Amino acid sequence: MSDDSTRCGNAAYSAIQISPDDPLRARIAEAVQSVRTTTPLAQSFTNFVTINLVANAQLASGGTAAMSFLPDDIVDTAQIAGATYINVGTLLPFYKDALADIAERLGRLGKPWVLDPVAAGIGTTRTAILQSFRDHPPTVVRGNASEIIALADMWGLNDNVGGAYPSSRPAGVESVDDVDSATGAAMRLARHLSSHAGKAAVAVSGEVDLVTDGEHVYRLPGSSAMMTKITGAGCSLGGVTATYLAVADPLTAAIAASLLYNRAGESAEAASRGPGSFQVEFLDALWNTTAEQIAASPMSMA
Amino acid sequence: MSDDSTRCGNAAYSAIQISPDDPLRARIAEAVQSVRTTTPLAQSFTNFVTINLVANAQLASGGTAAMSFLPDDIVDTAQIAGATYINVGTLLPFYKDALADIAERLGRLGKPWVLDPVAAGIGTTRTAILQSFRDHPPTVVRGNASEIIALADMWGLNDNVGGAYPSSRPAGVESVDDVDSATGAAMRLARHLSSHAGKAAVAVSGEVDLVTDGEHVYRLPGSSAMMTKITGAGCSLGGVTATYLAVADPLTAAIAASLLYNRAGESAEAASRGPGSFQVEFLDALWNTTAEQIAASPMSMA
Amino acid sequence: MSDDSTRCGNAAYSAIQISPDDPLRARIAEAVQSVRTTTPLAQSFTNFVTINLVANAQLASGGTAAMSFLPDDIVDTAQIAGATYINVGTLLPFYKDALADIAERLGRLGKPWVLDPVAAGIGTTRTAILQSFRDHPPTVVRGNASEIIALADMWGLNDNVGGAYPSSRPAGVESVDDVDSATGAAMRLARHLSSHAGKAAVAVSGEVDLVTDGEHVYRLPGSSAMMTKITGAGCSLGGVTATYLAVADPLTAAIAASLLYNRAGESAEAASRGPGSFQVEFLDALWNTTAEQIAASPMSMA
Repeated sequence: MSDDSTRCGNAAYSAIQISPDDPLRARIAEAVQSVRTTTPLAQSFTNFVTINLVANAQLASGGTAAMSFLPDDIVDTAQIAGATYINVGTLLPFYKDALADIAERLGRLGKPWVLDPVAAGIGTTRTAILQSFRDHPPTVVRGNASEIIALADMWGLNDNVGGAYPSSRPAGVESVDDVDSATGAAMRLARHLSSHAGKAAVAVSGEVDLVTDGEHVYRLPGSSAMMTKITGAGCSLGGVTATYLAVADPLTAAIAASLLYNRAGESAEAASRGPGSFQVEFLDALWNTTAEQIAASPMSMA
Repeated sequence: MSDDSTRCGNAAYSAIQISPDDPLRARIAEAVQSVRTTTPLAQSFTNFVTINLVANAQLASGGTAAMSFLPDDIVDTAQIAGATYINVGTLLPFYKDALADIAERLGRLGKPWVLDPVAAGIGTTRTAILQSFRDHPPTVVRGNASEIIALADMWGLNDNVGGAYPSSRPAGVESVDDVDSATGAAMRLARHLSSHAGKAAVAVSGEVDLVTDGEHVYRLPGSSAMMTKITGAGCSLGGVTATYLAVADPLTAAIAASLLYNRAGESAEAASRGPGSFQVEFLDALWNTTAEQIAASPMSMA
Repeated sequence: MSDDSTRCGNAAYSAIQISPDDPLRARIAEAVQSVRTTTPLAQSFTNFVTINLVANAQLASGGTAAMSFLPDDIVDTAQIAGATYINVGTLLPFYKDALADIAERLGRLGKPWVLDPVAAGIGTTRTAILQSFRDHPPTVVRGNASEIIALADMWGLNDNVGGAYPSSRPAGVESVDDVDSATGAAMRLARHLSSHAGKAAVAVSGEVDLVTDGEHVYRLPGSSAMMTKITGAGCSLGGVTATYLAVADPLTAAIAASLLYNRAGESAEAASRGPGSFQVEFLDALWNTTAEQIAASPMSMA
């Protein structure tokens, strides 16, 4: 495991550019287009801070949205939704039982879902919820580097002995670790997910995004520093990943969503004068960026 | 009842245009103007997804807003508010008792309120809440076609025997039924409300909006397809209907709010480049559309 | 106490302009700059209506944000946050115990926090929560005039005998009292806070904002009437006050935040065409207004 982590940490230096005619690019374009023509429903159990942006980003990407907090709602809606998104940002006491129950039922129904382990490592309630997902894991995990490392550690997947988190202390919802340092944790998480769900993916958001299916690691450069000056860029990326997961395999869904976000972030930065206009332009760019632009994005593989 | 439904279904074909000097138009202009000069308070118990847009739309329409989730807050505020809005979009476990209690108290106090039965038919908790409103019903119901049909069915007002919903399976928060197919259910609902509250109205939102007081059915064409690409167009229309209900009778309030939304949607579409700028322009248009423009809208009656 | 109130009520007429080289202006500029260079974390327990705007305003002012509703989250995050913000706008039943517990723990840890007593006087649950804060009070209180008067009354700090609120009946979340009428209550509140926390401040928002440390009363004119046409101007000002409190003393933090809001409100009004574009321009202006512009604002002292 230690070797693994080292290899992955070095992988960036031997990265191979993804060629213009790689079949992955066709799958990405197809996912983007399919969402726009079939408007798939992805439902969310997400935090109160950014719930509006999650729904609006899913709509602007071409999907439809439904938000719920009750197991009976989620299970009913899972029958008609293409995927589910669970984000543990703002917790209420009853979530502890509700979320464990929902994860178990989604697993039993074989329904794909995306987890955003916001602020993993903060609070005993959040830790209990995230630990409960270990045996009924999601299809995709998306987080920042600190969250991915903390989640892998909570699930006993990291190589350190003794249980201390390998990251420095979590800084609330902001990552204190850089993306590359999470490569090993991301790969081990992806393999754990795959062992339950078949295909799976883990996405680590940062200056350069990493996405892995447990075998390969894709690096997706670009985006805008203004993404950190609006609340919910990461949360809504998780929601849009669920939207793509309704029409595509986990790796394609996670990459397509990150690429759309990177291109839309760049467009929005160019057109805006501050975080208020950035968010407006960003939603417009989610709507207007073409499938070809998204699929033609720079990408390398380790 | 079956006859009724058929007659209403056909009503569109024999629609009469509302003349420029119909007294209804004067009542609409007066309601719009009265909200802007008296800034009435309408309180809301609404979902977490679009609660911000509900409040902002009420403010942009000229009213003031207060949002609560506790019976003691709602009942205290009901003393000073002109109307109350209840939306069952995102439920928490304690709402089941709280909402039944609030509806009963509003009824006992004789306070007018608007119900948005979001996602009616999904989840046992939501169904229990909506059923509890049958004997303490609102003054106005606003929903999409599927929700109106499902609610009328839950309250035993539809003509089908055996309890199956007459609509196809509810598709989460999106309507799967067209507006005209809900005409019969809307009229029966409006009569049920009237039997408790005196004057009442039911509004069905869609490509063409329908509003009925149980006797006549008004058809309000126009608006923008972009309204479905932002979250909360329907929810916030329910909130603005409550704002108008604070100064006008139920039928006038429901029509005035729908007309304002249709005109503001058209303005916003013309001025925007995607769903981000659409929402900004829409709020500006709620603020800037004149009472005369609203009252002069195309309308027909069946 | 009655004298006190009269003196303060008259203070406006003998106001002294704060000179360009007053050390307070240097402290304000330093606080604004320090937030932008150190991006301090302020956490919030705030209402569901405006939680997104609170976070976005904190980010646009240069800070970082984390929102929670559980004592275990809040106490964990308090270790790494510079300040905490508590806003009682939309309550759930479990808040009654949770908020009393959090206030006590923040007090014991010696962590600074800002209270926004939204709608003080409405609802028995809110009253119970606000009363529980009396013996574990915040470092800063920010509210409108009616809320400040109601809170001082609840804590037994007003001069009236018999317990009736000195304000007219609270009008939901809107103030029915003018800012000057709250001067006495604000000063008594500030002294009560100081008796627990050492330095403290109370800010009363209105057409002219008042900020007092219990000794002096500062008057901060300006801003825009459009601030009342978007929801959350006051709530997000409380959040940004917490952001500044992470790097500055309570009086400087409260004044700096109010001045930033006044200048940004003026810029936004000049650049917008309605409440939708006003909010966008306002967030951009929080980002773009310079420390020098903020520190050079008109201010007088009584």
